[in-house]
Amino acid sequence: MSSDTPIRIDCLQYCNWSEKIFRQLRSGGLDAVHVTIAYHENFRETAANIEAWNRRFERHAGLIIPGRTADDVHAARRSGRTAIFFGLQNCSPIEDDIGLVEICHTLGVRFMQLSYNNQSLLASGCYEPSDAGISRMGRGVIKEMNRVGLVVDMSHSAERSTLEAIEIAERPIAITHANPHRWHPVVRNKSDTVLKALAESGGMLGFSLYPHHLAAGSQCSLHDFCTMVARTVETMGLTHVGIGSDLCQDQPDSIVEWMRTGRWSKQVDFGEGSPDNAGFPPQPEWFRDNRDFPKLERGLAQAGFTAPEVAAIVGGNWLDFFRRSFAPAGQH
Amino acid sequence: MSSDTPIRIDCLQYCNWSEKIFRQLRSGGLDAVHVTIAYHENFRETAANIEAWNRRFERHAGLIIPGRTADDVHAARRSGRTAIFFGLQNCSPIEDDIGLVEICHTLGVRFMQLSYNNQSLLASGCYEPSDAGISRMGRGVIKEMNRVGLVVDMSHSAERSTLEAIEIAERPIAITHANPHRWHPVVRNKSDTVLKALAESGGMLGFSLYPHHLAAGSQCSLHDFCTMVARTVETMGLTHVGIGSDLCQDQPDSIVEWMRTGRWSKQVDFGEGSPDNAGFPPQPEWFRDNRDFPKLERGLAQAGFTAPEVAAIVGGNWLDFFRRSFAPAGQH
Repeated sequence: MSSDTPIRIDCLQYCNWSEKIFRQLRSGGLDAVHVTIAYHENFRETAANIEAWNRRFERHAGLIIPGRTADDVHAARRSGRTAIFFGLQNCSPIEDDIGLVEICHTLGVRFMQLSYNNQSLLASGCYEPSDAGISRMGRGVIKEMNRVGLVVDMSHSAERSTLEAIEIAERPIAITHANPHRWHPVVRNKSDTVLKALAESGGMLGFSLYPHHLAAGSQCSLHDFCTMVARTVETMGLTHVGIGSDLCQDQPDSIVEWMRTGRWSKQVDFGEGSPDNAGFPPQPEWFRDNRDFPKLERGLAQAGFTAPEVAAIVGGNWLDFFRRSFAPAGQH
Repeated sequence: MSSDTPIRIDCLQYCNWSEKIFRQLRSGGLDAVHVTIAYHENFRETAANIEAWNRRFERHAGLIIPGRTADDVHAARRSGRTAIFFGLQNCSPIEDDIGLVEICHTLGVRFMQLSYNNQSLLASGCYEPSDAGISRMGRGVIKEMNRVGLVVDMSHSAERSTLEAIEIAERPIAITHANPHRWHPVVRNKSDTVLKALAESGGMLGFSLYPHHLAAGSQCSLHDFCTMVARTVETMGLTHVGIGSDLCQDQPDSIVEWMRTGRWSKQVDFGEGSPDNAGFPPQPEWFRDNRDFPKLERGLAQAGFTAPEVAAIVGGNWLDFFRRSFAPAGQH
């Protein structure tokens, strides 16, 4: 990467990881990616997923390194590799055991959603008919996550739960992958109330490139997307936004079924899809994989952002958030 | 501690940990202790045991710190605390899953016995009638332990398995808690063949103060113990010995039953004990708890060791071994 290439961080992907994709990360100049390592897995299953990542770190040591701190983003960049940060899209990996919060952090987990679509032990999910807010255990877990340096992520949580999490948390939270509801009014996108509270508390929104989160879906244009980014910056301020593409490259449709239905139902839940559109939707043609990051940057520039502003959006803001968020309280 | 107090490391204890015992560690000037965190626990249960330790590190932050590297021993000493290093007395925590070796190392585990008294997936235990040596999985696990920096401990393993482990391992192994069989011929103590092979390969023996490993048991005198140390040094060399007291302070007898019988039998196994001596035996009067370390040092001096030799035996040799052993291969 030339020295004027911005630091690039994608704060959510769940690809079917392979050497091909790791090489595309390098082609796209990604310095760091937050990868999902569990949806409905329990602790033991999550450990097995980390084992699979450890094997990738061994096999592809020339392409990826484990990401634990903001410094690892710089270390990856200096050595021409991509730092991989672990995240959980649900709290199932900590089971009913608050002690597993620190264990997961020790194992490298840096983000955890308090709920995924459904009610969890900690919070309500965005598809629940009722939103009970943060539970008794949820309050304790947020405090423990704040203590050890594990970021609260409310991407798939319901509105009241999200607002309560922002209020209860003593450190900024994240919505790693979603867009404004005003732009595209689907259940997973976020209200202005949430986005403003998030920004005021020092939190971060990662703009999603998952077609169900985009106005016009797979047909969304780069121009429309970047205009939406500009409008959101007017609401939230420049320093509170980044990218969380939700790229699910090369995944078979069985995976989206696992993401949505896990083991919680005997019926198929279609989540953001529908019976006639059950699988992964096709990506917009201007963001097919990690090699399209520079294209995204050109789109942001055309929407009126200066080069330093583009750099903040595609990585600088997340890097600053990583620096503030991953160390134990009192050490950051 | 005055600057001429030697670094003190006890390379095996399994106490019923409490603030009282942590304060006794400080009174005894212990800079580091290798503590057993699992006997027959599976991975999930071992994680729960680490959670319990995390809670102790929080509550007793003025007395103990997590030990991960040799540098942590110095950090503990400088701040007047004791570094706690985790170890497993059996391979049950890695289940049948070689990927858990690295996961356990990441969670802070620094020693693992390949077997505990019985046949395991990796090696034979010292109470088995037949010793099949290191298994197919055992060979792979030793290689993986060497790669990540997790020390092979053969304290409770059988002779052939131990000799094979020494030969297969590319990094020195340890027998953290045992004594020479020649001095006290019980199943758990080690032959001269094993002790010589251990020393030649750069490994370490920790002398045990558990009464079943002592000639005359609980009645063993400090003089006899220290004379035994002197004789062993003649066989192994000064740099290959340390202390691994096997102190099981304040444990109820239900714990020795768990250690010996786990869930592997419906009958009680008496291990080193017997039906009429089933519980924990009383400690010799000169080594009741951690406060007796200076007494042990005086005994060693009276047995003819110089001050630097005493310092090597009570901590310096283990510290050097820690420095060589805990980092991933190629990084030490």
